Amino acid sequence: MICFGRLLRRSSALLLFLAGLLFSGLAWAQDEIRLNFNENPFPVAPSVKTAILEDLEEASRYPVAETRAFLSLLAETQGVLEEQILLTPGSGPLLEMAGMAWAGPGRILVTAAPSYRQLTQSWLDHGGSVLEIPLNDSLSIDLEALQAAITDSTALVYLCNPNNPTGTLLEPEALKTFIQSLPLSVLVFVDEAYIELSEGGEAKNSMLSLMGEQPNLVISRTFSKVYGLAGLRVGYGVMPVGLKDDLLPYYQGGPNRLGVAAARSGLEDPSWVEENRKEFLRIRNLVTNQFDAWGLRYATPHGNFIFFETGQPIEAFRREMLETHRIRVGRPFPPYDFWCRVSLGTEEEMRLFLNAVGEMLELNP
Amino acid sequence: MICFGRLLRRSSALLLFLAGLLFSGLAWAQDEIRLNFNENPFPVAPSVKTAILEDLEEASRYPVAETRAFLSLLAETQGVLEEQILLTPGSGPLLEMAGMAWAGPGRILVTAAPSYRQLTQSWLDHGGSVLEIPLNDSLSIDLEALQAAITDSTALVYLCNPNNPTGTLLEPEALKTFIQSLPLSVLVFVDEAYIELSEGGEAKNSMLSLMGEQPNLVISRTFSKVYGLAGLRVGYGVMPVGLKDDLLPYYQGGPNRLGVAAARSGLEDPSWVEENRKEFLRIRNLVTNQFDAWGLRYATPHGNFIFFETGQPIEAFRREMLETHRIRVGRPFPPYDFWCRVSLGTEEEMRLFLNAVGEMLELNP
Repeated sequence: MICFGRLLRRSSALLLFLAGLLFSGLAWAQDEIRLNFNENPFPVAPSVKTAILEDLEEASRYPVAETRAFLSLLAETQGVLEEQILLTPGSGPLLEMAGMAWAGPGRILVTAAPSYRQLTQSWLDHGGSVLEIPLNDSLSIDLEALQAAITDSTALVYLCNPNNPTGTLLEPEALKTFIQSLPLSVLVFVDEAYIELSEGGEAKNSMLSLMGEQPNLVISRTFSKVYGLAGLRVGYGVMPVGLKDDLLPYYQGGPNRLGVAAARSGLEDPSWVEENRKEFLRIRNLVTNQFDAWGLRYATPHGNFIFFETGQPIEAFRREMLETHRIRVGRPFPPYDFWCRVSLGTEEEMRLFLNAVGEMLELNP
Repeated sequence: MICFGRLLRRSSALLLFLAGLLFSGLAWAQDEIRLNFNENPFPVAPSVKTAILEDLEEASRYPVAETRAFLSLLAETQGVLEEQILLTPGSGPLLEMAGMAWAGPGRILVTAAPSYRQLTQSWLDHGGSVLEIPLNDSLSIDLEALQAAITDSTALVYLCNPNNPTGTLLEPEALKTFIQSLPLSVLVFVDEAYIELSEGGEAKNSMLSLMGEQPNLVISRTFSKVYGLAGLRVGYGVMPVGLKDDLLPYYQGGPNRLGVAAARSGLEDPSWVEENRKEFLRIRNLVTNQFDAWGLRYATPHGNFIFFETGQPIEAFRREMLETHRIRVGRPFPPYDFWCRVSLGTEEEMRLFLNAVGEMLELNP
C-alpha cells in the first residue's frame, strides 16, 4: 500500500509536470506578440515596482500631497514653472482638451498627414476645420508647406515630433524658427510623446526651451513610452499660464496615485529610464540594420516604432503577420497603404518579427 | 575588550531602541488623522493587493482587453447594457462632462444646496445658469421644492443621493416618482457615489432599476468609497445610449489598468466590499450613538461621513480640531456655518475624534 501510494504520488507529480509543460506550450502558442501600440516591452523597472508597493497601502486615499510633490519635482526637473504644468492621465486628455477649448466654426487646425489623430479628431468633434498637409519625400513633416498654409483663419498648428506613425524628427533649429515665425494669434501644439527616443534626445530636440518666450506654445509629454508606464496613465502639458486658463474648464482630473508614485521614481532615479532608452535604441538599430541589409525602405525612426515599406497591401500583410506568425503590427495609415508601422518589442520579439518579414517578403536572411 | 564591545553593542541597541521610540512618538505626533475627504480608512483589501500585484508586470501595456472584460463584468453585475456604461477615472469626469455637454446660455441646472459642487461648477464654467434650492429641515434634498422650480428653461436636475455633505437619503419611491414626473426634455443626473452605504443599500435605493425606461436619466457611480479605491481613480456612468453620445465628444479616456484590476476584484469577490460596508456602518453607529448620548444634532447619515452641529463657527472649530488634536475635518458648507462634516475613520480614529469633540464642546464623556 505504501509503495503504491508513493508510486501514485510520483505519477501524479509526473503527470502534473507534463501537464504543466503542455499548458505552458499552449499558452506560448496562443500568446500574441504585441507590436501595434507603441508600448514599452521591457520588464517593469524594479524602482517602479518598489514605488508602487510602497504606496499600495494608501490606495484608498486621494493623492493630494503626493500630486503636489510630484508636480514640484517635475517642474524643477524640466526647468519650467509649476503653474505652467497640467498633470493628466496620460497625454491624451491634453489633446482632447485642445479641441474642446480652441476649436470652433471657421477655426482651422493645420497639421501633417499622416500624423497622430487624437487632437485633430477632437478639433473636428468641436466644430473646427482641419487642413492636412502631406509629408515630404522623407516621410517627414513638411514645415515649409505648413508655413505656406497658414492664413488668418489658422487657429492652431499641431505637430507630433517625432511624428507618429512615421517616426521622423524635425530638425530642432528649423522647428524653432518655424514656431518663432508664426503670428502670436496662431497656437502651436507640439506633441513630444517620443522625444526622449529621438537622436540627440530630449535636451537637443525638445521645444521646452522656448517655453519662456513663446506665449502661443503648448507641449505635451507622457510617461507612457520610454518610462514604460502606459497602463498607469501619467502625462502632462506645459504651456503659458494664459493658455492653461483656456484648458482648465475642460480639465477632468489628474493621474492616479500609483501612476504618480511610479513616474516620480523615474524622475528621482533616471538610470532605469536611461537603460530603457538605450535598449530601445539598440533594438531599433538591430532592426534597421537588417532592413538596410535587405534594402527595405523605412523612414528614419526617432520613436519606439519603425515605419517601413512592405510592398504589399498593409491589410493583407498584417492579417498574415497575425494569423501565421501571431504578431500584431500597426493599422493602415493611408495613403501609405504599402507601408507598416511596427512598434519595438524585445530583442527576441524583433528577431521573430524579422524572420516573419523575411519569410513573407521572400528576402534573404 | 570583549566585555566592553558587548556593552557597546548593547548600549547601541538600547540607544537605537530609544531613538526608535522617540522617532515613532514624533511621527505619531506629526501624523494627522484625515477625516476630511470622505475616503475609506480601512486597510487595503488583500484581494485588491493581489489583483494589483498580479497585474503589475503589465504596467507598460495599455489596458485594452482588460478594460473590455471589466466593462462586460460590470454590465452583467449591474444588470445594464455595456453600451450604457462610460468608464472614467473616478466619477468626477462624468460630472465635468455633463456641464461641458449640456450647459449653455439660458439653460438652467436645478440642484439642492449645499450639495456636491463639481457638476454645478462645470455647468457655470460652460455658460449655464444654476438654481439652488435649500435643503429642508431634516437637511434632506427638498424634492417638492425642486419640482416646483422646474420650468421650460430647466435643462438638468442634479441630485447627489445620499447627499454630500449632509449624508441624507431620498426615499426611493419618492425619488422614482419625481424622476418619472419630469418632462423628458429635462435631464436628471443622480450621483450615487455613496449609495452602497445607505440604509437598505444599493438594491433598495439605487435608481439603476429605472435605466431601461427613463431616456433622460444619468447615474454616476464610483469605486472610491465603499470599495476603497479613491487613489486609483475608477468610476463610471450609466445612461441611455443617446445621452452617452452627447458626452462622448468630451470623453478623455478610461481608468488605469491597476485601478481596473482592483475594481474587478471587488466585483468578482464582493465579500471584502461587504466587510468594508459593515465596518463603515458599525463605526457610523458608534459615532451617532455618542452624539445621541450627548444630545448633539446631526443629519441622518447614509454615507461614509456625518454632518453634525458644532454650535461653534466651523472655521474656528476645524482650526482647533487640527491644531490641538491633529484631526482634519471637512471644510465649511454655508449656510451651515455651525455644522461640521466629519468623514468616517477607523474605530480608533473616531474614538480620538469623539474625545476631541467632547473636550471642545465641553460635553460629558
